Amino acid sequence: MADIKYEIKEKLGTLSESSKGWTKELNLISWNGREAKYDIRDWAPEYEKMGKGVTLSKEELKELRNILNDINLD
Amino acid sequence: MADIKYEIKEKLGTLSESSKGWTKELNLISWNGREAKYDIRDWAPEYEKMGKGVTLSKEELKELRNILNDINLD
Repeated sequence: MADIKYEIKEKLGTLSESSKGWTKELNLISWNGREAKYDIRDWAPEYEKMGKGVTLSKEELKELRNILNDINLD
Repeated sequence: MADIKYEIKEKLGTLSESSKGWTKELNLISWNGREAKYDIRDWAPEYEKMGKGVTLSKEELKELRNILNDINLD
């Protein structure tokens, strides 16, 4: 993945942190200079390494929000 | 990925559908017979193939819901 360039445009929140310091985060990220997309992904401390993740458009994130507000998570 | 067994326990919602019929979905999935986890992932029609995705615990999904309700997506 060394040839993928990315820029974290906005840190939106941390979902969890593992015992080794990796964090699962929602960020707005520009990949290879393209338009920024929302991104849910695991990151090593200081963003040194990244895990697998999903990128989402704003519309997908809105739909996800609606689904999460509809289902019972408690 | 042919040796990964999974069972979709509950379909929670579809975030989007591509022109080729792939859907981005939130599901509750058991991987290799383990306890089911929440999962955001792209799927080919009829779940024939899967794309990359993230799995999330219930706590991570709750935190994601809180973040999404806090940020302005409109």
